[in-house]
Amino acid sequence: MEEADFRGLEITIVGLGLIGGSYASALRKMNPKKLWAIDIERDILDQAENRGIIDGGYIEGASVLKRSDLVIISVYPELTVRFIQENLDYFKPGSVLTDAAGIKKKVIDDIRKFIRKDLDFVGGHPLAGKECSGFANASSDIFMGANYIVTPVPENKRSSLLLVEKMIRGIGCREPILMNPEEHDQVIALTSQLPHLIAAALINSSEFENIGSLIGGSFKDATRVAKMNVTLWSELLLENKENILTQIKVFADNITRFQNALQKEDSTSLAELLEKANRGREKL
Amino acid sequence: MEEADFRGLEITIVGLGLIGGSYASALRKMNPKKLWAIDIERDILDQAENRGIIDGGYIEGASVLKRSDLVIISVYPELTVRFIQENLDYFKPGSVLTDAAGIKKKVIDDIRKFIRKDLDFVGGHPLAGKECSGFANASSDIFMGANYIVTPVPENKRSSLLLVEKMIRGIGCREPILMNPEEHDQVIALTSQLPHLIAAALINSSEFENIGSLIGGSFKDATRVAKMNVTLWSELLLENKENILTQIKVFADNITRFQNALQKEDSTSLAELLEKANRGREKL
Repeated sequence: MEEADFRGLEITIVGLGLIGGSYASALRKMNPKKLWAIDIERDILDQAENRGIIDGGYIEGASVLKRSDLVIISVYPELTVRFIQENLDYFKPGSVLTDAAGIKKKVIDDIRKFIRKDLDFVGGHPLAGKECSGFANASSDIFMGANYIVTPVPENKRSSLLLVEKMIRGIGCREPILMNPEEHDQVIALTSQLPHLIAAALINSSEFENIGSLIGGSFKDATRVAKMNVTLWSELLLENKENILTQIKVFADNITRFQNALQKEDSTSLAELLEKANRGREKL
Repeated sequence: MEEADFRGLEITIVGLGLIGGSYASALRKMNPKKLWAIDIERDILDQAENRGIIDGGYIEGASVLKRSDLVIISVYPELTVRFIQENLDYFKPGSVLTDAAGIKKKVIDDIRKFIRKDLDFVGGHPLAGKECSGFANASSDIFMGANYIVTPVPENKRSSLLLVEKMIRGIGCREPILMNPEEHDQVIALTSQLPHLIAAALINSSEFENIGSLIGGSFKDATRVAKMNVTLWSELLLENKENILTQIKVFADNITRFQNALQKEDSTSLAELLEKANRGREKL
C-alpha cells in the first residue's frame, strides 16, 4: 500500500456494486483527501457513508465530479460510455478518468470520439470478481494479488498512466500489465469469457437428478462462475463476440483432440494431451 | 466421527498414496484395533509408521490380510483387480473389501468373476482429491464433507454395506449415495471426468505468452484439475470412454447453443442460456 501519495487527491467512484464498492474500501485505506461515490441507489450510498467507506454519496454527481482529480467508473460497459458522455461538462479540467469494464476496444473507441481534450481516459480492467454481485459483497480483498490490465492509447499522458498504475498497486493488485485495447479483448476472450461460457455450458449439461451429491471439487470449481450477473455478461459476451467465437473454436478443437484419442483408444496421444495440460497448468 | 465402533476391527489400507494415506489418517482417529498398510515403497510405509498413522507397513501383505476384517484398496483401477486376484488366498474368511477407484463397472465385473464366495467386495468412490498426489500430500481433511458413492451388487451382504457406510461417515464424508456401477460410471463421466477433460483442453487452448498475468479466478478455477496424475487419468478416461464420449457430445451441444446465440447476436437466447446456468449452479 502506498498510503501517502493519495492525500492530495479527491477521488470519485461511479457505481457502488461489487467492484465499485471494493474500490471504495481499498482506496479508503490510501487516505485520499476526499472519496466520493455516485450511484443510482440512495440506500447503498447511505450505507457506504455510514460505514465510513466514502465521504459522501450522490445520485447526481456534478458537484463532486467538478472537484475530482481521479474518477473510477465501475458500471457496465455501455453505461460507462454513457456516463462520461452525459457528465462531460462536469469533470474537473485536467482530471483522469478510468474504468473497470471487461471489454476495452469498443468502450475506448466510443469515448475517444467525444471526450474533452483536457480530460484523460485510461482504460483498465481488474481481473477480480466473485460469484455474487452488489455492494453487500464488496471487499478490498478481491484486489489482493489480482491481475490488472491497463490499455493505454497514444493520447494518454504519461502522468495519467502513472496515477492509474499507482492506484492499482495501492489497492493491492499485482504490477499492471499494459496492452492495447484490441489485444486485451483477444486475451480476455480466452482467460475470462471462455471460462464463464464453459462453466455455463457444463452446468446446462448436467441433467442428472440430485447432482449436488454426485460432484467433487473438479465440477464445483469448473462451474463456480456459472452463477454470473446475466445482464453484465450478456453485454460482455455480445460486445466481444468475434474474439469469443475464435476462442470457442480453438477450445472445441482441443476437445476434439481428446475425443479422437478416446475414440481410437490411443493411449499415447491421450497421455501426450494430458502431459501438455499438466505442463501448461504448472506454468501459470 | 463414530470412534468407538472400530475398536474391534483390524483394517488394512492397500496403497498409501494421496487417497490411501488420507484414509489411514482419517481411520487412525477412529481407533481401530490395528491399522495396517500395504505399499510397494518401503520408505512411505516407514514414514507412516513413524508418524503413528499406521501400526505397521508391508510390501508383501499376506500376514496382515489374514487378520484384516476390512481391506480398503486405494490403487489404480486395474491394479485393484490384480491385487485382489494375486492375494485371493490370503484374505481373512468373511472379510469385507472395498476400493476407491474412479470407475466401477469394469472393476466390479472383473472382481466378481474370481472372488472367493466368503469374501464381500463393496465398490466405493470417494469424490475427493487434490491437484497433487502421493502420501506427502495426504490428509484426512480431503474427506471432510466430501461426497462418496457406493455401488452395491446383489451379492453384497447387508452387514458389509453397513460396515463400509459406517467407515465413510466415520472419516468425515457426507451420507453415502448408493447407485449401481453402470449408473456411477455414467454420472461420473459428467461430474468428474468431463471437468478434468475440459480443464486440460482449456489449458491446451491457451497459447498466449505470459498467460499467468492475464487470468482471473475463472480461468484459475476452471483449470485447477488440469494438473492431474497422467497415468491414473489415462486409465480412468479410457476405461470409461463410452460414457465420456456421450457427455462430451452433450457438453459440445451446449457450447454450440452459446455459439449460435453469439453468432446471431440473439441476446434473448443468450440471456436464457445464462439464466438456466445461474439457476442450475444455485441448486448445487
